[in-house]
Amino acid sequence: MITLANRMVTVSYHPSVMDVFDKCVRRRDIELASKDLPFYRPIEKRLPGGEVLVDGRAVLMAGSNDYLALSGDPRLQAAAVEAIRGLGTGNSGSRALNGTLALHEKLEEELAGFLGHEAAMVVSTGYQANLALSPLFGPDDVLFADRHVHASLVEAVRLGQARFRRYRHNDAADLARMLATADPSAGRLILTEGMFSTTGDLCDLPAISDLARRHGARVVLDGAHDIGLLGTYGGGVAEDIAVDVQTLTFSKCFGTIGGAVTGSRRVIDYLRYHARAALFSASLPAACTAAALAALDIIRGEPERRWRVLAAAERLRAGLAELGFAVVPGRTPTIPLHIGDTPLCLRAWAELLDEGIFTNAMIPPSVPEGRALIRLSVTADHGDAHLERVLDAVAAVGRRLNLIACAGAR
Amino acid sequence: MITLANRMVTVSYHPSVMDVFDKCVRRRDIELASKDLPFYRPIEKRLPGGEVLVDGRAVLMAGSNDYLALSGDPRLQAAAVEAIRGLGTGNSGSRALNGTLALHEKLEEELAGFLGHEAAMVVSTGYQANLALSPLFGPDDVLFADRHVHASLVEAVRLGQARFRRYRHNDAADLARMLATADPSAGRLILTEGMFSTTGDLCDLPAISDLARRHGARVVLDGAHDIGLLGTYGGGVAEDIAVDVQTLTFSKCFGTIGGAVTGSRRVIDYLRYHARAALFSASLPAACTAAALAALDIIRGEPERRWRVLAAAERLRAGLAELGFAVVPGRTPTIPLHIGDTPLCLRAWAELLDEGIFTNAMIPPSVPEGRALIRLSVTADHGDAHLERVLDAVAAVGRRLNLIACAGAR
Repeated sequence: MITLANRMVTVSYHPSVMDVFDKCVRRRDIELASKDLPFYRPIEKRLPGGEVLVDGRAVLMAGSNDYLALSGDPRLQAAAVEAIRGLGTGNSGSRALNGTLALHEKLEEELAGFLGHEAAMVVSTGYQANLALSPLFGPDDVLFADRHVHASLVEAVRLGQARFRRYRHNDAADLARMLATADPSAGRLILTEGMFSTTGDLCDLPAISDLARRHGARVVLDGAHDIGLLGTYGGGVAEDIAVDVQTLTFSKCFGTIGGAVTGSRRVIDYLRYHARAALFSASLPAACTAAALAALDIIRGEPERRWRVLAAAERLRAGLAELGFAVVPGRTPTIPLHIGDTPLCLRAWAELLDEGIFTNAMIPPSVPEGRALIRLSVTADHGDAHLERVLDAVAAVGRRLNLIACAGAR
Repeated sequence: MITLANRMVTVSYHPSVMDVFDKCVRRRDIELASKDLPFYRPIEKRLPGGEVLVDGRAVLMAGSNDYLALSGDPRLQAAAVEAIRGLGTGNSGSRALNGTLALHEKLEEELAGFLGHEAAMVVSTGYQANLALSPLFGPDDVLFADRHVHASLVEAVRLGQARFRRYRHNDAADLARMLATADPSAGRLILTEGMFSTTGDLCDLPAISDLARRHGARVVLDGAHDIGLLGTYGGGVAEDIAVDVQTLTFSKCFGTIGGAVTGSRRVIDYLRYHARAALFSASLPAACTAAALAALDIIRGEPERRWRVLAAAERLRAGLAELGFAVVPGRTPTIPLHIGDTPLCLRAWAELLDEGIFTNAMIPPSVPEGRALIRLSVTADHGDAHLERVLDAVAAVGRRLNLIACAGAR
């Protein structure tokens, strides 16, 4: 075995000019808490029944977006394994040049049908599905976005160079005011998520849709967290109210990775030849494409799976409210526990892990300053015994750190 | 099975304002050639011996970046299958929050050692590895980039908002002039690819490195196409000449998908908490991570694999030169056939496919106007009989379309 000598790079550096790496300093708030940091904690193994191995200990995963628990489903795994055997571990080329599989086209056709759109374009991550929208966001357009939309959508707007206006979270009156005073010569587009990823609340799509019609705006909805989970058929927040374009990801309800944009044939054909995040990136491996197809079959065929998740989420919300937490009303499986202070939030995360529960700590800039929170996610793996474990842990840590008063004070 | 009624979306559209979708018109040059278009052609199946099934016909793949032919390697496939069984088809969370696997950390450690850097950060695509550089490219910095650098690097610069200057392709004198007159108060960074993806030529790293030292600039090198393929140990163009940061992809020599950034611990730690393409995207699935680790083992342990590819590339270049093509000198497996005219290039692609050879047509804006080309790629699957097939096809199509004169005239 030939190995490269362990040569560490030291570039002699010119002392008289500024160094572009001077900016690479660690965040002070993270530095302070670095002993038991909630971020980049490695999972060693997935265990049956929703547990994972962290630092050699089995803990309950209560922070995953794998809402339908499909990543561990034998049908997805069998589809992925078969795809690897027939098509290899990667495609080594972009969709445009030499990386399109018949399997991609099948998934596109099924997704378009499922979401009631004419066409779909599959890309390699959900992040890139949102970036791929940027050719729609031109400098002659005005884009109205909910203040809470995902970072990837903000990047897409920057790349497209549209004029960017952000309305207050879920505030249709604020959006209406902005639309009423918008440049009449500009194209208009409203950008929202279906279910918001941090807080688990839903957009007010009836109001948005009505405003769009009245002001001649198009609506683009990111269904990353709601497609597969909400709606009678699992079609998400926009199942009953048409939007012009949807994006989705395969890393939440679809149990793998990848993403897609759906819309009219004209829009999707345009994006295929103009979206750099699609044109200049290797295509989605066959394993992930096949897993997403298997997930879509399960989403269509087993509605009881999402009903179970939503019912469990309801029980967890009720239990948290009983403990005295100010739980935001709703029925989604993403439930924020508002903490406020960042160091306290980091400590709460570590103590919950000590109690055997893996959660997500959301601190600025993912949330506004002073609004740090612990995000709990319910998945189809969670039965009553799991929910009890979560509630017991939250109760214990809540008492020790006086979190319930914090949450109540908001 | 419950399915959503096949509801096509028709949004009634306000007639008095501009429609943001008015821009969605098809490219005229592509429209003209749409009968036998080289783009988004689906591959139905991979066949043994480097062939793929397209439109029901077995054709030789001569346009893949799977240089080492590892996507079909049983060792990568076994590693991927084992990872799926132990860790599932996806991680359903970002690296930061709940998607880091011990396997990611192992790959990071091995990549850093392999490339002689202190640390590495694995992300979900090579495209996102380049986007993840954007926090290094601040508004107070001046960035000097080769005119041919990849679209993903251009996006990263836009997102970072650095001042952006592009020097003539592989022209150290042009770069030197720019550096000499650069704002002395700005941070300086030189951005290049190791092996350029379209033309297969290498950057002049000795000259770039020397200029960087003299002008106090950092060097960031995208090793997407050369890491695993070039250098004594497979470490790529920067194996013997240190650069400050490298990016790489797993969708070329590593036979799967994903990417990484390597550099000093300080830079990588900074990117882990500031790179939005890393923070806000689901982590790389276990299957791809395990496949990349298996590929790295093969790259380190079987240098004869890359020697074989480089030797085959040499024979193909010699054969093309014998046919009268003006072949750019070099030893890389990416070989451009310069055509010039876009419609002629699209036609050449279709006729090569008729002859049983799948190639890549590169047309503007991927290449400059009037510089359309057919890109041939040699992989470890290609023996002498394959190269003969490629040469016979190129000779036949070259004669019919008079391509040799075109290429010679350049």
